[in-house]
Amino acid sequence: MRVLLTNDDGIYAKGIEAIYLALVEAHEVTVVAPETEQSAVGHAITFLDPLRVTPVQRNGRFFGYALNGTPADCVKIAIAELIDPPPQVVVSGINMGANVGVNVIYSGTVSAATEAALMGIPAVAVSIDSFNATDFSAATTFILRLLQVLEKKSLPPGVSLNVNAPSVPAEQVRGVRITHQGRRKSIESYDRRVDPRDHVYYWLTNTSIFQDPDSDADSSAVAENYISVTPVHHDLTHYETLELLKEWDL
Amino acid sequence: MRVLLTNDDGIYAKGIEAIYLALVEAHEVTVVAPETEQSAVGHAITFLDPLRVTPVQRNGRFFGYALNGTPADCVKIAIAELIDPPPQVVVSGINMGANVGVNVIYSGTVSAATEAALMGIPAVAVSIDSFNATDFSAATTFILRLLQVLEKKSLPPGVSLNVNAPSVPAEQVRGVRITHQGRRKSIESYDRRVDPRDHVYYWLTNTSIFQDPDSDADSSAVAENYISVTPVHHDLTHYETLELLKEWDL
Repeated sequence: MRVLLTNDDGIYAKGIEAIYLALVEAHEVTVVAPETEQSAVGHAITFLDPLRVTPVQRNGRFFGYALNGTPADCVKIAIAELIDPPPQVVVSGINMGANVGVNVIYSGTVSAATEAALMGIPAVAVSIDSFNATDFSAATTFILRLLQVLEKKSLPPGVSLNVNAPSVPAEQVRGVRITHQGRRKSIESYDRRVDPRDHVYYWLTNTSIFQDPDSDADSSAVAENYISVTPVHHDLTHYETLELLKEWDL
Repeated sequence: MRVLLTNDDGIYAKGIEAIYLALVEAHEVTVVAPETEQSAVGHAITFLDPLRVTPVQRNGRFFGYALNGTPADCVKIAIAELIDPPPQVVVSGINMGANVGVNVIYSGTVSAATEAALMGIPAVAVSIDSFNATDFSAATTFILRLLQVLEKKSLPPGVSLNVNAPSVPAEQVRGVRITHQGRRKSIESYDRRVDPRDHVYYWLTNTSIFQDPDSDADSSAVAENYISVTPVHHDLTHYETLELLKEWDL
């Protein structure tokens, strides 16, 4: 298949190289990825600044195009300007750190897949549950298999897949679980400091994690060494609340 | 009520001043807003850079705190570090330009309300359907009324309200419609240019709009001079697709 590959950790990250090397054996892969780390950018797009595309080498060979933008920008500009004919599937990742639970809303990795789905192209975000993974085989093995399925099966319009892999070798994966975005949440605080010029500044820090006990939650599957696959879309409406609001005197 | 007021157009924008002046007559308002325009940042949060808080004056008087971050950062840091006791409601806006349809996913204005809802605080995003509005009365009148209702009624956990007002004086508003996020979409393209040093760059541009014909869509309500009120949440799961995926051989 013609694959557009992007990520949010930036074009020089380990995760995008790992999935590139796996994909390129069987597919025609074009990389368009942010030139710098774009973690926690959410579904940002750039229209206040001009975008520039720069060819990038890795290991002495052409690897792909770096963009001074976000993951969603990469998908938009790749499809509009850089790849012709358009890709048949978009893969975003492999992100370092699971994109599960509440924190999915901050994910640039997932937003790239959502953007592709909005443009009518099947898309998969993929993350690994470790910030310093060196063995990506659980994720790469599953993505190769998933692309085979996506050659034959269709997702509903606007729906993409958010895949999370445990940080274990492929042979230790216990299976695949279809999940929903759970309630796992980072508990955050701010570390208040004073700079050498006596000005206050703050660092956002994670102090702990609220775990979702629901076994169908994305985070639970990954914690039990399953691959989690969550279908995601872009409609933020909370439909259950529509009737409640109609009863309010607004 | 104790109101935290933020936005994504920046602390010096016209819209935040308009809603501030309306709210401050009846409420205790604290402004924590981005120091620069943050349009289309989506649900971004900042953890790679330190955050700084700066007191800001408007019209010769203290107006609020500027933050070198996103709307979601403003909500997080205001509640964690700046406001004690915490606000009873968060208002985000008034954004210049409607936040309706598919483009809601790019909205920093809406992400501030979503972030507050995640933190357990009732929240409202408010936008006006014009990029150069001067009369904000349709929006301010409705928000004052909505806060009265929110003093008595509760939203479900994690749910906030995305309000859009037509750009007409308050007396020309035809009413309030409870809506869902529709399929209205900007049709975009890239304007390719060459800089004086012969390097290519691109501007993202809107070329047209796909209108959603559904009368219950947010965009339709605003176009017909109604206030639209859409309940939004942070769960991106497309539940209808869960069963489909379970039938796939993954």
